[in-house]
Amino acid sequence: MFAIFKRCCLLSLLVAGLCNSTLSQANADEGMWLFNDLPTEHLKSKYGFEPTEEWSDKLMKSCVRFNVGGSASFVSSNGLVLTNHHVAFDTLSKLSDKDNNYAKDGFLAKSMADELKAPDLELNQLIKITDVTDKVNEAISSDMAPGDAAKARRARIGEIESAAKEESGLRSDVVTLYGGGKYHLYQYKKYTDVRLVWAPEASIAFFGGDADNFEYPRFNLDATIFRVYEDDKPAKIEHFLKWSEDGPAENELVFVAGNPGRTSRIFTTAALKYQRDVRMPYILDFIRRREVLLQQFGLGGPEMERIAKDQLFGFQNSRKAYMGMLQGLQDPAMMANAVAAEQKLLEKVSSTEELKEYASAWEKIADVQKRKAKKQGQGVLINSRMFSIAQELVQMATEDLKPSNERLAEFQDSGRESLEQQLFSSAPIYKELQQAILADEIARMCEIRGADDELCQTVLAGKNPNDRASELIFNSKLDDPEVRQQIAAGGIDAIKNSDDPLIKLAVAVDDKVRADRKDSEELGEIEKQAYAQISQVMFAANGTSVYPDATFTLRLAFGPVIGYEEKGKSIPAFTDINGTFAHEESHSGQKDFDLPESWTSARDKIPGGTRMNFVCTTDIIGGNSGSPVVNKDLELVGLIFDGNIQSLIADYAYTDKQGRSVSVHSNAIRESLRYVYDAEFLADQLGK
Amino acid sequence: MFAIFKRCCLLSLLVAGLCNSTLSQANADEGMWLFNDLPTEHLKSKYGFEPTEEWSDKLMKSCVRFNVGGSASFVSSNGLVLTNHHVAFDTLSKLSDKDNNYAKDGFLAKSMADELKAPDLELNQLIKITDVTDKVNEAISSDMAPGDAAKARRARIGEIESAAKEESGLRSDVVTLYGGGKYHLYQYKKYTDVRLVWAPEASIAFFGGDADNFEYPRFNLDATIFRVYEDDKPAKIEHFLKWSEDGPAENELVFVAGNPGRTSRIFTTAALKYQRDVRMPYILDFIRRREVLLQQFGLGGPEMERIAKDQLFGFQNSRKAYMGMLQGLQDPAMMANAVAAEQKLLEKVSSTEELKEYASAWEKIADVQKRKAKKQGQGVLINSRMFSIAQELVQMATEDLKPSNERLAEFQDSGRESLEQQLFSSAPIYKELQQAILADEIARMCEIRGADDELCQTVLAGKNPNDRASELIFNSKLDDPEVRQQIAAGGIDAIKNSDDPLIKLAVAVDDKVRADRKDSEELGEIEKQAYAQISQVMFAANGTSVYPDATFTLRLAFGPVIGYEEKGKSIPAFTDINGTFAHEESHSGQKDFDLPESWTSARDKIPGGTRMNFVCTTDIIGGNSGSPVVNKDLELVGLIFDGNIQSLIADYAYTDKQGRSVSVHSNAIRESLRYVYDAEFLADQLGK
Repeated sequence: MFAIFKRCCLLSLLVAGLCNSTLSQANADEGMWLFNDLPTEHLKSKYGFEPTEEWSDKLMKSCVRFNVGGSASFVSSNGLVLTNHHVAFDTLSKLSDKDNNYAKDGFLAKSMADELKAPDLELNQLIKITDVTDKVNEAISSDMAPGDAAKARRARIGEIESAAKEESGLRSDVVTLYGGGKYHLYQYKKYTDVRLVWAPEASIAFFGGDADNFEYPRFNLDATIFRVYEDDKPAKIEHFLKWSEDGPAENELVFVAGNPGRTSRIFTTAALKYQRDVRMPYILDFIRRREVLLQQFGLGGPEMERIAKDQLFGFQNSRKAYMGMLQGLQDPAMMANAVAAEQKLLEKVSSTEELKEYASAWEKIADVQKRKAKKQGQGVLINSRMFSIAQELVQMATEDLKPSNERLAEFQDSGRESLEQQLFSSAPIYKELQQAILADEIARMCEIRGADDELCQTVLAGKNPNDRASELIFNSKLDDPEVRQQIAAGGIDAIKNSDDPLIKLAVAVDDKVRADRKDSEELGEIEKQAYAQISQVMFAANGTSVYPDATFTLRLAFGPVIGYEEKGKSIPAFTDINGTFAHEESHSGQKDFDLPESWTSARDKIPGGTRMNFVCTTDIIGGNSGSPVVNKDLELVGLIFDGNIQSLIADYAYTDKQGRSVSVHSNAIRESLRYVYDAEFLADQLGK
Repeated sequence: MFAIFKRCCLLSLLVAGLCNSTLSQANADEGMWLFNDLPTEHLKSKYGFEPTEEWSDKLMKSCVRFNVGGSASFVSSNGLVLTNHHVAFDTLSKLSDKDNNYAKDGFLAKSMADELKAPDLELNQLIKITDVTDKVNEAISSDMAPGDAAKARRARIGEIESAAKEESGLRSDVVTLYGGGKYHLYQYKKYTDVRLVWAPEASIAFFGGDADNFEYPRFNLDATIFRVYEDDKPAKIEHFLKWSEDGPAENELVFVAGNPGRTSRIFTTAALKYQRDVRMPYILDFIRRREVLLQQFGLGGPEMERIAKDQLFGFQNSRKAYMGMLQGLQDPAMMANAVAAEQKLLEKVSSTEELKEYASAWEKIADVQKRKAKKQGQGVLINSRMFSIAQELVQMATEDLKPSNERLAEFQDSGRESLEQQLFSSAPIYKELQQAILADEIARMCEIRGADDELCQTVLAGKNPNDRASELIFNSKLDDPEVRQQIAAGGIDAIKNSDDPLIKLAVAVDDKVRADRKDSEELGEIEKQAYAQISQVMFAANGTSVYPDATFTLRLAFGPVIGYEEKGKSIPAFTDINGTFAHEESHSGQKDFDLPESWTSARDKIPGGTRMNFVCTTDIIGGNSGSPVVNKDLELVGLIFDGNIQSLIADYAYTDKQGRSVSVHSNAIRESLRYVYDAEFLADQLGK
């Protein structure tokens, strides 16, 4: 699964044949390309295809970003949005309750009146990209201390964003590219009235479950359809994708337009080793811990299982993803490649007069890694929804006393609507689950800091973690969105006068939280400046036709639909409906391998040769989930939902020897709507 | 579940009303008493019961220790041994295969000829206890360095054990009591021909699964029956327990005789904080990691699930146990109690002239904790069965070149038979599972030490953890017990000439392993000497009628059968068969709450009022699983299998306010044999 920060993999990772990761040069069909800097030369010379401006503008505007993580596309003039079931899972869970478990059992609106409004979705349609690198850099002078530079940069970015928003009315985000080498302004039209139209059952969307995750061949209908509304009516969409009649042919060139979340291909070897030896082990311990906790919680009964499912699913997916990445980083051959590539850049520096001043960039980054390793686990480590709400309210009240561009980034005016969309969401908060998570988070902080630590004693307040979490959660009213709105409206006085125990705790630890954040931002600034220099070296070494690391903004990837060889066996590019039923039979009795009743009863109706999933070589990563796969004519031929095991090293390097992205075939969606879900009326709207 | 190192608990732990843990004085019915130092005064004054020597000798000899962890008792003159299903689970798994899953589906031998020989069980019957404190201490002089003292002590203990074994033919173990304050020689008759007679289905033995584990009320038939053989005939047993006709009455005084594995009630506050802040978080991260790995492995299909089940079960049990203990340690009130108790001992020291020399003991222990914290995770961290086998073979070959009492403890002559029983066991080893575990262990070592570390590079040998583990496991023949025997018989030359990759790896890391062990033993020696001094202070403060911390040797605990209050509700002491079926109904659809078909179809036959489980206040801990519960007349009335949540702080302190041990009622075993399993012939042998 490829939702943002839901990256992927299992045990063995292909290492031989990796591209030279540190250079990020376009080898084969590598690349997550900027829409304002497409690799037209490469496409023309290799595929004889020259994308016009009209082509790329139409594709860009047909794409949709799920603000909470994930990609999607407009697929009709009346507002239909296609994404993955696993991208929609968070919303499906929020719309579900004890009696209607749409996340598990699926949903179909028989008419527009039956479509269900999502409590807190924000969809972004990218309208315009502008290079603002010079404007941002003007705010920084070379003699500034890192902390001051970070502050000045944040203020300047805030100014640019506010001005752009005011002028256009669009959501305006300045994006840091090439680790700080460039800054682009991305402007989005926002859609916040988003309604659920159709979702299949989890058992076909995630057929094969955790066992099949990141495997291929696959047989999943990982798709869900929403509709955007404006003024309570279906939005009229100018730019949307046509629906391909037959999907892609084998070896056909296809394009993926979506929002890859984060790659780290620019990382120095010191940064890779920090990831390998410090950060990833820490994150994996946290993920496994939460996974076990959520499983335990779910043992309490069907309703508790339902409540915990969305998070459990995300953590299991992340665990596989991070394990795969770590396995790659621990491979001596992979690290040797990275060292050799870095060596080449360093040679370029020492042999080029005008680059010599950048030689210290690598040392600076190495030094930051050491400082980050020391800071690891030293903050206020409470990852809990209700506590985060309290923190946001407390910080917002203080920040709002300052002018917008002096505030912490998330409290500046430009992003306020999006912040409030989440903060005041009516999505249900289950206190039992919140209590279990907070108890474990308090225990974890005590484990990491040592329970005698002053901060821990403040948090514990004389009780054990479990009793303290009960007191904090069950006596708090922050689960009620109206209470949150009241406190927010009351500003700093409402915070001072609040007797909500979570608010009080957030106030008590706020100085510490802010100090930790300041430290982290300083370290980030040093890295940013150093990577900006390394980018200059890369431009000098490889020309400017390189793509930047992923930043959860719209990118174009491309490549052919093509199978691969594995252990001497040929893995075909396509799977079909017959294979889906055969897969169920060959895994009889295993968890998550039972097809839903709708499918088994439709077996004779849905044509067995209908294609189900396919693979192509496009360069994607977490965040690309839900991306449309299109052909040269901008017809939708597939829906990205996963990468295979061999692709999972993509955070650090692209490989197309066996690495593949995995899509739902466009026919599988249309034909299942027709024959399985009895939704011809919906199938008929696709692409029109 | 209470098998050794399978300790227990969930979230909330009772802290109020804890006894003064550091003093280990007998409050209420606290105590795991030595059979050669029973609390006769207390029993007489509180219960008017005076155990005779004959009484305690008969009980002692009726008890059986499962050498791999767990307790049991003789329950017939023809060799029947009663223990828990979860103690037998390891053996049940080893006897199972793809087609016969006795661990899950149960087993009944229709006749003696059908009884199944366990591949590697060793049962110990305690025959004699002798105080050898002076003999051990004579070997140590006060001016020895800790390393020398440890070596001298080990040599002296080896001499005592060898001489005792030679003289008696019995297994002879010197046991360290009161943290080093006393040494007792325990001599056992061994039974190594042990055959499976009956086991119920896992679904009734572990009814309610992980969710109900450590909860009460319970409804579990956690029982299994073996038979010991000598010369291929059922052993004739002189000392065995009669079977009670009706089980215990409410409030009746009962006794538990079994082998509690380990308690830490003598620990100083520095040692408790090391456990809380360093050791337990480390262990819990390891446990969760392995739990997730085994779950993942089991997703591969029913056979893989079966193979991983035994270990998964153990890790889940341990996780609950350790989480409970840690929760208790993190409670500021619990630690404040421990600090106050320690303060009293320190006051005793400073006010008593002859104790003043012991004042430094607490500082020495504090210093050792700091050194242990630094060493944490710094060894060769490969917990894998096949690698352990290689290590044992490699070390044995070197150690056998030395005289017995100079060897590492486990290779001395006195324990050789038990060592070989395990090392040459014919129990199946599944390479797929071994590979998955070894891959994860190598990755874990790289995470902890940093992958550039020299030792890690040696282990990786240029490959990633997964590929390296495949190479090591699939090219090794150590899964074959005959190969192991050949290598062992070949001594040091067989090791030198072996091209088994695991043997080669074990040779490559052996120096490091030995150096780490030497360090640890030195630290252990310093602690031992310091705790011996603290014990003297305790004797001075509280008299000698104190019991030592648990050491996986036979102890007596006692107390009444009695319910308790929880959240204002009265929890009755007993549950019955009707409650069992009601429990299934009220948890319909939940994992592990379906009774087996044998039970549902016998519902009308088995009397509904038959008692199923009960609780009493006896002081037990992991290792006590399978202990007989007897009345004053030495009739078996129950079978210990668990402790409730509130008892789980028992590692550090006893409490009888809500803390209870949980037993299968003797009637549940007898009546289910009769009415559910159609085994009247077996029921008729019980107690006869």
